[in-house]
Amino acid sequence: MSERPLSAIEALVRPRSIAIVGCSPEEEKIQGLPLRFLLHNGYPGKIFPINPSRAEIRGLTCYPSILEIPQEEEIDQAFILVPFRAALRTLEECGSRGVKSAILGTSGFAEVGGDGIARQEEVRRIVRETGIRVMGPNCLGMINVPDRVASTFTPVAGLPLIPGKVALVSQSGSVGGSILNRLLDRGVGVNYFFSSGNEADLEASDFMELLLEDPSIEIIAAFIESFKDAHKFLRVADRALELRKPLVILRTGNTEKGARTIQAHTGALAGSARVYKATFHQKGVLQAEDYDDFVGMISLLAKSGVPHGNRLGVISFSGGAAGVVADKCGFMGIPLPELSPHVRDEIAQMQSFGTAQNPLDLTGQLASDPNLFKACLRLLLKDENLDSLLVILTNIFGGLGKRLVGDLVEVAGEVQDKPLIPFCTAGSVAAECTKELDEGPLPLFRNYHECLRSIRAVAGYAEFLKGKKGRGWAPKGSQTSDALEEIRAKLRGKKALTEEESKALLARYGIPVTRESLATSPEEARGMARKIGYPVALKVISPQILHKTEAGVVRLHVRDEAELRPAYVQLLEQARSYGPRAQIKGILVQEMVEGGIEAIAGTIRDDLFGPTLLFGLGGIFVEILQDISLRLAPIGPEEAREMIREIQGYEILDGARGRKKGDIEGAVDVLVKLSNLAQDLGDLVEQIDINPLIILPEGRGVKAVDALVVLKEV
Amino acid sequence: MSERPLSAIEALVRPRSIAIVGCSPEEEKIQGLPLRFLLHNGYPGKIFPINPSRAEIRGLTCYPSILEIPQEEEIDQAFILVPFRAALRTLEECGSRGVKSAILGTSGFAEVGGDGIARQEEVRRIVRETGIRVMGPNCLGMINVPDRVASTFTPVAGLPLIPGKVALVSQSGSVGGSILNRLLDRGVGVNYFFSSGNEADLEASDFMELLLEDPSIEIIAAFIESFKDAHKFLRVADRALELRKPLVILRTGNTEKGARTIQAHTGALAGSARVYKATFHQKGVLQAEDYDDFVGMISLLAKSGVPHGNRLGVISFSGGAAGVVADKCGFMGIPLPELSPHVRDEIAQMQSFGTAQNPLDLTGQLASDPNLFKACLRLLLKDENLDSLLVILTNIFGGLGKRLVGDLVEVAGEVQDKPLIPFCTAGSVAAECTKELDEGPLPLFRNYHECLRSIRAVAGYAEFLKGKKGRGWAPKGSQTSDALEEIRAKLRGKKALTEEESKALLARYGIPVTRESLATSPEEARGMARKIGYPVALKVISPQILHKTEAGVVRLHVRDEAELRPAYVQLLEQARSYGPRAQIKGILVQEMVEGGIEAIAGTIRDDLFGPTLLFGLGGIFVEILQDISLRLAPIGPEEAREMIREIQGYEILDGARGRKKGDIEGAVDVLVKLSNLAQDLGDLVEQIDINPLIILPEGRGVKAVDALVVLKEV
Repeated sequence: MSERPLSAIEALVRPRSIAIVGCSPEEEKIQGLPLRFLLHNGYPGKIFPINPSRAEIRGLTCYPSILEIPQEEEIDQAFILVPFRAALRTLEECGSRGVKSAILGTSGFAEVGGDGIARQEEVRRIVRETGIRVMGPNCLGMINVPDRVASTFTPVAGLPLIPGKVALVSQSGSVGGSILNRLLDRGVGVNYFFSSGNEADLEASDFMELLLEDPSIEIIAAFIESFKDAHKFLRVADRALELRKPLVILRTGNTEKGARTIQAHTGALAGSARVYKATFHQKGVLQAEDYDDFVGMISLLAKSGVPHGNRLGVISFSGGAAGVVADKCGFMGIPLPELSPHVRDEIAQMQSFGTAQNPLDLTGQLASDPNLFKACLRLLLKDENLDSLLVILTNIFGGLGKRLVGDLVEVAGEVQDKPLIPFCTAGSVAAECTKELDEGPLPLFRNYHECLRSIRAVAGYAEFLKGKKGRGWAPKGSQTSDALEEIRAKLRGKKALTEEESKALLARYGIPVTRESLATSPEEARGMARKIGYPVALKVISPQILHKTEAGVVRLHVRDEAELRPAYVQLLEQARSYGPRAQIKGILVQEMVEGGIEAIAGTIRDDLFGPTLLFGLGGIFVEILQDISLRLAPIGPEEAREMIREIQGYEILDGARGRKKGDIEGAVDVLVKLSNLAQDLGDLVEQIDINPLIILPEGRGVKAVDALVVLKEV
Repeated sequence: MSERPLSAIEALVRPRSIAIVGCSPEEEKIQGLPLRFLLHNGYPGKIFPINPSRAEIRGLTCYPSILEIPQEEEIDQAFILVPFRAALRTLEECGSRGVKSAILGTSGFAEVGGDGIARQEEVRRIVRETGIRVMGPNCLGMINVPDRVASTFTPVAGLPLIPGKVALVSQSGSVGGSILNRLLDRGVGVNYFFSSGNEADLEASDFMELLLEDPSIEIIAAFIESFKDAHKFLRVADRALELRKPLVILRTGNTEKGARTIQAHTGALAGSARVYKATFHQKGVLQAEDYDDFVGMISLLAKSGVPHGNRLGVISFSGGAAGVVADKCGFMGIPLPELSPHVRDEIAQMQSFGTAQNPLDLTGQLASDPNLFKACLRLLLKDENLDSLLVILTNIFGGLGKRLVGDLVEVAGEVQDKPLIPFCTAGSVAAECTKELDEGPLPLFRNYHECLRSIRAVAGYAEFLKGKKGRGWAPKGSQTSDALEEIRAKLRGKKALTEEESKALLARYGIPVTRESLATSPEEARGMARKIGYPVALKVISPQILHKTEAGVVRLHVRDEAELRPAYVQLLEQARSYGPRAQIKGILVQEMVEGGIEAIAGTIRDDLFGPTLLFGLGGIFVEILQDISLRLAPIGPEEAREMIREIQGYEILDGARGRKKGDIEGAVDVLVKLSNLAQDLGDLVEQIDINPLIILPEGRGVKAVDALVVLKEV
């Protein structure tokens, strides 16, 4: 343990001394477990049990209160296990005594609602006033394996802990404990475990940020319900990418029902599920769906590292099992490329089992020629068409089974850069043979879904890193500071902009809008229409009428002068009858944009993550299929292109089925410019809707036909 | 074992005597395993080892060939383990000697292609000529637990077998063995296991059909790649529904890549994946996605039976774990209803942990009040809002953990009709407590995905049975036999019908088509248009021009007489230039149908399952999203309604977002009538396309605007 002075959070993570407040001698009670686990794991620092009714516990001197510990003793961490009233009093005492950090294991705070929320506020006050840093309340404590600190009451700390490159942070202690347990069962070393609980003070991102810089840590895994501070998390995500340390996250609260349970549980407001998902996607976070693949991804990364890409080879002794895997790979979009010609040739020379393909089925020939396995493993591992190799072990048993596993382990020792992933379909019949793999250096899977979800996530991360390499883009504002001030001045005090004002703002940022002018008389309208060219559209402009189509104050396809005047008059009448008190600024004469594909582009403000870009196709794609993509601002052209590519209806833009290909680059440009706008004006703008954004055929650009800018209520 | 004479297939399933051809004394060799497993499991019948180089094996007299066994010995089953040439000779000998059935364990037949296909043909010939029934080739044998027959070389037969209500049939022996192993590991009893291999003679459906009638069997499970005889399978599926014995199927070959592997493996032609899926759905088959949920579904059914519906209650000690489950349930569409008010009230009286909701989180209160668990379990089990109850066990350990498991087992003993499903999130830390559950009467899950997929599939089956109860519909032809003969006469010898002929056929079956007449001069056309009413559409009719829009011989929206004549002339010119030799029958004058939703309805002929109905919405739904639903003919109105409801774009028909609701019952009627047509004419018709079928607003019906009937090549 280091001897330099520790910051408060470091004192919590690497304590040189620990006080256990409410310590019990009973080994199965929650109050007795932390001392038991600290001793069990050989904690080398000082321990001060606090319990007014005992003189000593397990040979350690007991103190009646934290204040009775001799003042010369520095206390890095206090683990508080007493009920909430006493807990608050103790925390106050810790703060005033100069205890650097505290773990508040007690429940009865924000997670129960009502008075609990006030109690949690009280924790925050003590943190503010005394400078003590707090983990919890309603948490299970922490484990630091290198320093032999098991300051926790999760029963998992009673198992043999394994040092290793994983750090695990969990808001839910119980979920975190289960995951830690499953990782240990597979022989995956976890150097740090933190249960951050209600996060009155320190939050998951604080621990992730600290542990990212720990040289022993190569993988950060977190179970979260929501982040308190989105920007802290974004900093962590960016830094993780910089360090090439994968960040694996299981987040719950992704559906309405899930969100409700969480609210009852931690009192945290779950952010919008879609924005979370898009953010993780954008930042290269490996997203787990449930415990299973969360544990699987961590195991795979810890044991095999990150492959060079997503191309999977499969080798099997059973055509049936290979078929199930190939099916699932097809369904999940995991590429199973053809083997290289030279590998195919070499395999053809030694086999009698049909063509050498991927998946490679060794068939019954294996029984008569057991060398085949090792030879094929080596060939596939050197195949430059493959990035990882999945080995399906079926009902292996007896001498042959043991030999095959031995061969696998031997070959695994020869390769450095390609994950070799064994998957066993059988249960107890193969147990004797797979024993060697269970806690060994290879990531043995026993479950299809978990195995392939994990492979896909890790492969996706590899592809993400490749994509990132080429991107030199950095966001920049596109206005001079004078111009920006002028723009901002126009926005202040308004609730929303009219169509005309909205488009003017977009045009300032270089977004193409329809040619149009505001007319205040039929004569003026005639002159404008002549200039713009027929056909034109007419729209009543009024700050009180934001939804013009619903109000019936839009006329499309006005073909000539003969149609213009009566249309003008009729629209004014309709506007007056729709909103008798609406202030009418005039009638917008607008070019008709035809022959393109209707899209929607815009920004929304996420409560947690702030300005977020949105793209989708119009009509049923947005209305019925909710087929949109999202990205946090700022984004560059690569990211914008990805946004467009990932919608379900992308084929339509791409010219499917004899359609004309749309001007995708024009749409990319609009998204980047919206991002610039959001960067400059994110504090003022609540939402921007370009609907429709017409995407013309390739080479002819795009055009914002209608737009609405909603401003933040101040 | 029964003493009455056995049919050949019964002789294979319940043999009173077995000859093992190629029997080896080496216990680890494939040729040695069947004898070892037969003796190990206490087979009570006669065994005749055949091996020309041994006098006896394990105390049993050895014969040099099957022909040397004394003629008075009846042989029910010969297990043939010699290489393929000798195997064919032996099979011929078995047939001529009167051996009732044979298991052909040998590989090198159709699965290797080339000569193997001819060898498999040879097997068929012997079956035809001698009457012997054959399982295999390329199979692993069979197990019949009640009669203690383990005539197989799967190593799983060396484990303690467990009698029970499951029958398992697998085309792939290796996959089947793994699944059997996993079921046994969970304490699920499997009375029968068959590895049907290449199915030269007997196929999976034969075994399923026989075992369905076995009173000991309540669940039939099958791993299949494809069926040889679709009608045999459909008979099995219908009978399974009649007997209320769930049929659980894992089928591979669902994606292109998967299908390729299978072709190499068994030489069986994989049927169309979508038709398989639709058929299983239509017949109430529980469809697994992979081994995991296949094993899960079987375990759940075997241990807990079928619930009354799909409403799930969840009880947990951890809000975090409950959140993950609630999330996944939301995502997967598993309903988690509110608890009943009386249950909520009773829980509120005993708890201090916030509101009583579903999932119910017992929180830390459990540690101080362990009675809470049993009390809440009993309350939720009697809640009439719930059909099944999922119990999430987290990191349970020590005395409390054991007590909770004991309580669970106690309460489980009290209920009869509601599945009580424990799910343990932890690994080894909880092992001591979950030991009691591992092979016990409750279906313990350890894996989220498997657990919830299994719950959903079983719940879906329960809902399917409920839906089936109300359906009294039986298909019937709708034509008199004279009328039918007249219709058939018109179809014979043609490759396809023109639009006019196609619509005439549809109209005979009561499907509404556009009003229209065939004109052979502009004057005739004018008279017809006047009668139909403007606007009209004009279409050139020629047997040589089937795709009229592509040929440019369609004119829509002809508004009046002034437009009619020039359009008529121009269309004729276009037709002549498009197809100079096309025989032009005239120009169809047709009413324009406007203001409806474009749909597609029709029939296709699946190679395996025959006439299949298809429904989808037009435009991007079919083109881009491939959003269609399928059903095997015949169907009734309930099934047709479901077909329409299950497409992704259903909301559009249902009046989403201010749209007019479409005449769904009109579309239902068209599908039922297409089904009648397919019933009557399925042997002649290859494909029917009604595209578009316009679905008018509710109450205004539907109309076939264009139609094409393609006939079978004879």
